[in-house]
Amino acid sequence: MTEKYLYSREYKKEDSVIEVNGVKIGGKKIVVMAGPCSVEKKEIMIEIAKGIKKRGAKVLRGGAFKPRTSPYAFQGLGEKGLKYLAMARDETGLVIVSEMMDTKDVSLVEKYADIIQIGARNMQNFSLLKEAGRSEKPVLLKRGMSATLKEFLMAAEYVMKEGNHNVILCERGIRTFVQYSRNTLDLNIIPALKKETHLPVIVDPSHGTGVRDFVIPMSRAAVAAGADGLIVEVHPRPEEAISDKEQTINFKQFRKLMEEVRRVAEAVGRKA
Amino acid sequence: MTEKYLYSREYKKEDSVIEVNGVKIGGKKIVVMAGPCSVEKKEIMIEIAKGIKKRGAKVLRGGAFKPRTSPYAFQGLGEKGLKYLAMARDETGLVIVSEMMDTKDVSLVEKYADIIQIGARNMQNFSLLKEAGRSEKPVLLKRGMSATLKEFLMAAEYVMKEGNHNVILCERGIRTFVQYSRNTLDLNIIPALKKETHLPVIVDPSHGTGVRDFVIPMSRAAVAAGADGLIVEVHPRPEEAISDKEQTINFKQFRKLMEEVRRVAEAVGRKA
Amino acid sequence: MTEKYLYSREYKKEDSVIEVNGVKIGGKKIVVMAGPCSVEKKEIMIEIAKGIKKRGAKVLRGGAFKPRTSPYAFQGLGEKGLKYLAMARDETGLVIVSEMMDTKDVSLVEKYADIIQIGARNMQNFSLLKEAGRSEKPVLLKRGMSATLKEFLMAAEYVMKEGNHNVILCERGIRTFVQYSRNTLDLNIIPALKKETHLPVIVDPSHGTGVRDFVIPMSRAAVAAGADGLIVEVHPRPEEAISDKEQTINFKQFRKLMEEVRRVAEAVGRKA
Amino acid sequence: MTEKYLYSREYKKEDSVIEVNGVKIGGKKIVVMAGPCSVEKKEIMIEIAKGIKKRGAKVLRGGAFKPRTSPYAFQGLGEKGLKYLAMARDETGLVIVSEMMDTKDVSLVEKYADIIQIGARNMQNFSLLKEAGRSEKPVLLKRGMSATLKEFLMAAEYVMKEGNHNVILCERGIRTFVQYSRNTLDLNIIPALKKETHLPVIVDPSHGTGVRDFVIPMSRAAVAAGADGLIVEVHPRPEEAISDKEQTINFKQFRKLMEEVRRVAEAVGRKA
Repeated sequence: MTEKYLYSREYKKEDSVIEVNGVKIGGKKIVVMAGPCSVEKKEIMIEIAKGIKKRGAKVLRGGAFKPRTSPYAFQGLGEKGLKYLAMARDETGLVIVSEMMDTKDVSLVEKYADIIQIGARNMQNFSLLKEAGRSEKPVLLKRGMSATLKEFLMAAEYVMKEGNHNVILCERGIRTFVQYSRNTLDLNIIPALKKETHLPVIVDPSHGTGVRDFVIPMSRAAVAAGADGLIVEVHPRPEEAISDKEQTINFKQFRKLMEEVRRVAEAVGRKA
Repeated sequence: MTEKYLYSREYKKEDSVIEVNGVKIGGKKIVVMAGPCSVEKKEIMIEIAKGIKKRGAKVLRGGAFKPRTSPYAFQGLGEKGLKYLAMARDETGLVIVSEMMDTKDVSLVEKYADIIQIGARNMQNFSLLKEAGRSEKPVLLKRGMSATLKEFLMAAEYVMKEGNHNVILCERGIRTFVQYSRNTLDLNIIPALKKETHLPVIVDPSHGTGVRDFVIPMSRAAVAAGADGLIVEVHPRPEEAISDKEQTINFKQFRKLMEEVRRVAEAVGRKA
Repeated sequence: MTEKYLYSREYKKEDSVIEVNGVKIGGKKIVVMAGPCSVEKKEIMIEIAKGIKKRGAKVLRGGAFKPRTSPYAFQGLGEKGLKYLAMARDETGLVIVSEMMDTKDVSLVEKYADIIQIGARNMQNFSLLKEAGRSEKPVLLKRGMSATLKEFLMAAEYVMKEGNHNVILCERGIRTFVQYSRNTLDLNIIPALKKETHLPVIVDPSHGTGVRDFVIPMSRAAVAAGADGLIVEVHPRPEEAISDKEQTINFKQFRKLMEEVRRVAEAVGRKA
Repeated sequence: MTEKYLYSREYKKEDSVIEVNGVKIGGKKIVVMAGPCSVEKKEIMIEIAKGIKKRGAKVLRGGAFKPRTSPYAFQGLGEKGLKYLAMARDETGLVIVSEMMDTKDVSLVEKYADIIQIGARNMQNFSLLKEAGRSEKPVLLKRGMSATLKEFLMAAEYVMKEGNHNVILCERGIRTFVQYSRNTLDLNIIPALKKETHLPVIVDPSHGTGVRDFVIPMSRAAVAAGADGLIVEVHPRPEEAISDKEQTINFKQFRKLMEEVRRVAEAVGRKA
């Protein structure tokens, strides 16, 4: 039993800044991660990477391994998807984040991605957390759909305890009785986390709301509440996206998001 | 059965602006309402009214009739409390908002207050809604703790159907599994409401979170998400407040709130 | 401030048994209340009263004043409905329970009904609770959709504090993320209440689940968990019922319910 | 895409009965599984196995790999724990169920346990589900804390699609605003599941409520609602148990549970 949890402000007072290929997460600048839900064809990935970079994103997201409710739904392109992400990085210099779902896939995901994502459904997959903790790559840890503050922070502690202190926390909506949003994006956790931990906190308004029209206002709100970054689903033609069509925004909407987020960021003493 | 609900954008496309003694709610300017949970002694009420006015509030809140979980808890000063509010108005010119809990009290609350509040626990007290609908005073309607979007809007419709179209909607937190905030302030409802209704939408970050330290960040977030105003618990010495000590901010914190909200308001094309 | 709440086991150790026209609620025998959601035409009310009595119900339910989400939905027959209930009582000797929604209606509801119901939406309508507390008729208090144990018991305390100790508590489902039932009938509250209070506890599986097929299994479960009674929506032709068609059972299903509940009641040392 | 899900009543109309070492799960007889939260010392495991067998349990539960919120909490005895379970089986003939948390551990857990448990936190650990689907041992699948009906059934489908049709579903409580029980045991899902699937459904009242005093009444209720079995935490001296002290019952309470469940089972046409 440790007296001071590694995630805690008692262990480390000042905010952690995680640097990946020159991109700083947790610093003054708001970091925006964007991209499709699932990794798509190579040409589309290159198109998306260029499109989001041009509009200000620093990190490209895309799932090669997809956690899908149904076993008959598209499960992702696997290694091929990771290769496409790496190609998009080569073309644009963007940082790559992609999800790892199985302890067996660590070395594979590590080989291509710059940040390893642990999804909401695996937030308490303790074997996976430990495996990620032995990686040298930063970990983007998504909050489980009904995770308490303590459970979320302790999941980060599982990673940190193994030696990997580069954990980025991500709020992505909780399960409530509400039905006008697919999940209830819980921005209240931002000040709650900031009080307890030095780790960077980002917000996913796409999964968090599940509604395209809510993505921009809730992105503004997330930054106003103190988030260090955003992860947003973007596709040039959302209606053609393999998954998450309803909540994915297009390039034009993403440009608007970036402009509005930038203004709010400045209003709260940050940049974007 | 009406085809177009009175609250709906189909009935009225443009945003409603409700004017009370020269204060416009729902317009370009963010309106801030502030004051103690319960109406306190006369001198304190005057002190609070002056203090919040100086820092930019336009409306003074304070409960004369208090809905308390326990019948043995302080139930409010009743008419005496309403008189103190009216005195504070005379001194400062602030608009007064106070809660009505019983259909029998309409004429009493109307006599002193400029805006009649219907609390969260009474959001589906249909007799009270109808009574408020027959008043000439605007109604501030708080969302019930587990109200759906439809239930909230239909509660407004009960008021409007009786002839009173001046309804201000107020998000104040919902019940979820979360325990780090007393309620889960649900900012997602702001874009959801703005899509469906022309009525102004304000946010109560004090009851919505129940945690003093969350009031400022969530106020910023509310305005960034598109809220038309805020209602905040303020007391010169929160530790001496009759009720809601844990979530009440002092004058210094309120000044900070106003400054930060003003910057965010400007960032989203509003004023405060 | 009282040291021992009137509802508490500290105030009164043994279970309270509330007697109404010879029917005992809270005793060894499980009491079943049944009838339509809304009071219907006189002939149908008589038909229902005879039908449920024949199958073992002791109390006839039916709403004359209906709390409806929409102001354009049927609001109940009002006094005419209460008269029909009274006529049904004259024909059958059943005890009558009906909802009161407005403090102004106390004397009216008291005049016809034997038990006054306070609905879930009014569980914290404190004026109404106090008014009911001054009545001589027992009060059936429904749990609010997001009420905590303390809030529920304190609502009972509001009634009792005014002098009326005959309060029957009723679990009727809470709001959760679940969608296969309209509400989540929370039977866990039965042992929780039984530990804290001497008041009788009944269960409403009709509103509690909102699904006809769940009414019988959850009625059995409620009695197995320790409930003192049930309140069930029954109509000879549910598809013709004015409201709550989806969850109302017919006479044949009600007979089955009574038979199955009787067996479970005996298994747990009760009768039905 | 398959037209008929393997879990569905369309695929298989009649109830599935899963037989393990002569014990039938899903048949007329209610199956009771019992044992400590975590596997304890060898002597205690033998004592527990004999104690629960004598009182009517057919399956011994015990975690060798423990999913714990904190990485500093006891993580289970691992293979040693599995060996103790196997020894207890040798002594008593009880069937063994134990949790698997990592795809790497399948062969290990399979080697000792008769039924492989997938815990609530791993309900959507799709790699683990697929791995379990390739096992020859039946799978006890616990519902995630915020799982919908569809997500729960689809998790079973992941297992079944790989060839293993022996899946036992287990309700173990969901996350709601309620605090008098640690989770809200949701018995409404029993009739909901029984309508959709032929798979057996059991209930865990220990984790489902988190309160010792609720375990017996909710066990009765579960069986009354139609559950095919129970899984209960039992320890000869709960106050000495390594984990879950608050909800674990002792032998005397377990005997009472069995007697009461037996009576309710008979009342609903089952046996126990």
